[in-house]
Amino acid sequence: METKKITIAGAGLVGSLLSIYLAKKGHDVEIYERRPDTRKANIPGGRSINLALSDRGWRALERAGLGPKIKEMSIPMYRRVMHDKNGNLSFQNYGLNNEAIYSVSRGGLNKRLMELAEATNKVKINFNQKCLGADLEEGTAHFENYETKEKTTVKADLLFGADGAFSAIRGQMLKRDKFNYSQEYIDHGYKELSIPANEDGSHRMEREALHIWPRGHYMLIALPNPDGTFTCTLFFPNEGVPSFESLKSAQEAREFFKEEFPDALAMMPNFDEEWNENPDSSLVIIRSYPWKIGNTTILGDASHAIVPFYGQGMNSGFEDCDILGQLMDQDLENWDEILDAFQKERKPNADAIADLAMRNFVEMRDLTADPVFLLRKKIENRFSTKYPQKWLPLYSMVTFSHIPYHKALELGKKHDAIMHEIMSMNDIETKWDSQEVEDRMLELSKGL
Amino acid sequence: METKKITIAGAGLVGSLLSIYLAKKGHDVEIYERRPDTRKANIPGGRSINLALSDRGWRALERAGLGPKIKEMSIPMYRRVMHDKNGNLSFQNYGLNNEAIYSVSRGGLNKRLMELAEATNKVKINFNQKCLGADLEEGTAHFENYETKEKTTVKADLLFGADGAFSAIRGQMLKRDKFNYSQEYIDHGYKELSIPANEDGSHRMEREALHIWPRGHYMLIALPNPDGTFTCTLFFPNEGVPSFESLKSAQEAREFFKEEFPDALAMMPNFDEEWNENPDSSLVIIRSYPWKIGNTTILGDASHAIVPFYGQGMNSGFEDCDILGQLMDQDLENWDEILDAFQKERKPNADAIADLAMRNFVEMRDLTADPVFLLRKKIENRFSTKYPQKWLPLYSMVTFSHIPYHKALELGKKHDAIMHEIMSMNDIETKWDSQEVEDRMLELSKGL
Repeated sequence: METKKITIAGAGLVGSLLSIYLAKKGHDVEIYERRPDTRKANIPGGRSINLALSDRGWRALERAGLGPKIKEMSIPMYRRVMHDKNGNLSFQNYGLNNEAIYSVSRGGLNKRLMELAEATNKVKINFNQKCLGADLEEGTAHFENYETKEKTTVKADLLFGADGAFSAIRGQMLKRDKFNYSQEYIDHGYKELSIPANEDGSHRMEREALHIWPRGHYMLIALPNPDGTFTCTLFFPNEGVPSFESLKSAQEAREFFKEEFPDALAMMPNFDEEWNENPDSSLVIIRSYPWKIGNTTILGDASHAIVPFYGQGMNSGFEDCDILGQLMDQDLENWDEILDAFQKERKPNADAIADLAMRNFVEMRDLTADPVFLLRKKIENRFSTKYPQKWLPLYSMVTFSHIPYHKALELGKKHDAIMHEIMSMNDIETKWDSQEVEDRMLELSKGL
Repeated sequence: METKKITIAGAGLVGSLLSIYLAKKGHDVEIYERRPDTRKANIPGGRSINLALSDRGWRALERAGLGPKIKEMSIPMYRRVMHDKNGNLSFQNYGLNNEAIYSVSRGGLNKRLMELAEATNKVKINFNQKCLGADLEEGTAHFENYETKEKTTVKADLLFGADGAFSAIRGQMLKRDKFNYSQEYIDHGYKELSIPANEDGSHRMEREALHIWPRGHYMLIALPNPDGTFTCTLFFPNEGVPSFESLKSAQEAREFFKEEFPDALAMMPNFDEEWNENPDSSLVIIRSYPWKIGNTTILGDASHAIVPFYGQGMNSGFEDCDILGQLMDQDLENWDEILDAFQKERKPNADAIADLAMRNFVEMRDLTADPVFLLRKKIENRFSTKYPQKWLPLYSMVTFSHIPYHKALELGKKHDAIMHEIMSMNDIETKWDSQEVEDRMLELSKGL
């Protein structure tokens, strides 16, 4: 394949990984990033502090030769630990075979990927570069340095927009005829809080787990960090009672936490300060199409931003790179074909994971506290363990497989219908692990 | 009510009518319009040449005292005239009581509304003004004169964006947190063609009618003009076979018309020229919310653009003015309350008419050629004529009533369910006007 000159807008997680994929194919890459170099100063790395890496993300990293380097900085989480209002715990394994999802710091991961990109010697990253516009057909982009005010016009063979949910490159596409687009803010926002380490540096709760305080219409979660702390996120309605609007002070929020999340609050010595200082952030779902116009292509959050409840935002963005890498390896005619195949392959999967992520919000905040739901999971897991070829639970399909998201969603809906039948069997609570239930599941799952 | 200084972006149909509503309440209005003054030069007035005014539009015009002045320039259309491939005609009245929809020239109507706005002596229209941005909270907007390059910052108490489907004011809103937005291009586009008058200036087809050539996945329509001509619009797939893409020349298009629309083609002496010169235009559905941010409010196509198949784009925009006028007459505290009530009232109706317009596309292009559909209409009309309080057909609710669109859509869905039952009665073709069918409809429609 001919060596190309390639511009990437955005040195975030997806832009950095993409540059490594392109560099390994011999292309010359220049990245233009809006923010300053986060490696040089103590600058916040992005919207949320913690992310959960799972199999799709890992495969994309491994194909770029980065798996072991990233695994060093992550903590496996093998199960959900649910906290009720009295501090009682219950547990749910993520996988059937001891699989884990991995807690990783967004900022730390981003810095590492930028280092690894530069280490290819084929990638140059320019910081403080605001995108002013682009000629999509040509693949030419215009930037202005925030500090020096110097303007640059960057001509290249290809331009990629990996510049996130508020993508400037997509902003150019938005003005084009027949560009479909939606941005949908959900009724919930989030606020980050933290649980510090014990004095000896150890974690104050089970370390290799994702902690959830499910409360119906809202929830608190906590992910472990290597330094003994937990990063907590409250997902909470923007309006109504209770909501970010209704809790008018840290004092009121503290009273609310005392009632709803007492065990968590007891581990938050800086609650008032964090409540006041950390913003109420919003959550948006972005859909768009086409992703390729002329020599310009958008990917990751720029083309498909989703809510964080399946932990698949970064993973789906990394999978974009993985799929693009596979297409580069195929014997396609030219970049037009590669990129057109890319968007056609990925669009239905981006739509599916957007829907799945909203579904999982309901599961996390509400159903993980529901005995019927937990029983259903037990029945599914028992069956799946015995007949792994017949039944992979939806969560495992999304998190621990490479089944395209849209196929996982379709299968998941079929599972729902089957489990609806199973759960309506008489005395299912007592006979859930009986031969009768197993036989019925075998029968119902024949058509899958 | 206190007199306000008000800026409107856009002197199109909705901006001009809105300015008259505001002027009549004593406010001082300045309009900034992107285009040159269409009254001074022979400049195309907008996207499509003909529009159909119906009751919602008329009431809005009448409340501004403009009914008679506009009626002079319009042609009533009392029925649909369907043309089959052999040129055979069939007919369908629009209303049950001789109601009509009114063909009117977009450009002519717009010019007349601008004149009437200026005649209030409270409205000034500035032309050639490109909107550069706005401070939404303040209601301040920035414009640049295309000709002189002079920049103006316009401070006012209120700013309205009536600047159409590609609204610059909405473009400012799009950058705000929690602004929901979608633009969805449908798979069909359109091209305008024309049928000239006879030599004596008379119309070459029935004058007071809307002509349709329904062909399943596409259709041709024609609306009468006062000068004896018809404006025709071909609604046609963008891609596939046949499509704008597949017909590669005027020659190929002519062959296609010879097959599909022979009677229309025979009246189009300038077919080749028009096919080549008139653009293939796209059709977009735009949804947004909120419509009010600070002192700035968007309305008409700027907040809710729809496809043209129910003839309700202009009518719904005019109804926006009507509803806003009614809210101004109420005893509300202040403009914040008025405009918040406005968006809450209108948003569900804007969503409903967007859906209704897509439904009517299927009806026009496909069902008007379907005997089962035509029989259903006959049964509904018979019943509605006899029991007007019990049953107003959906088309009449949308076109000849002021029932909120979202209520019309709800009722229409209930009608569909009832008519599905009726149409599945044995021998419905022969007994459609029997007492038995009438009794069954009376029974089924009890719950409406």
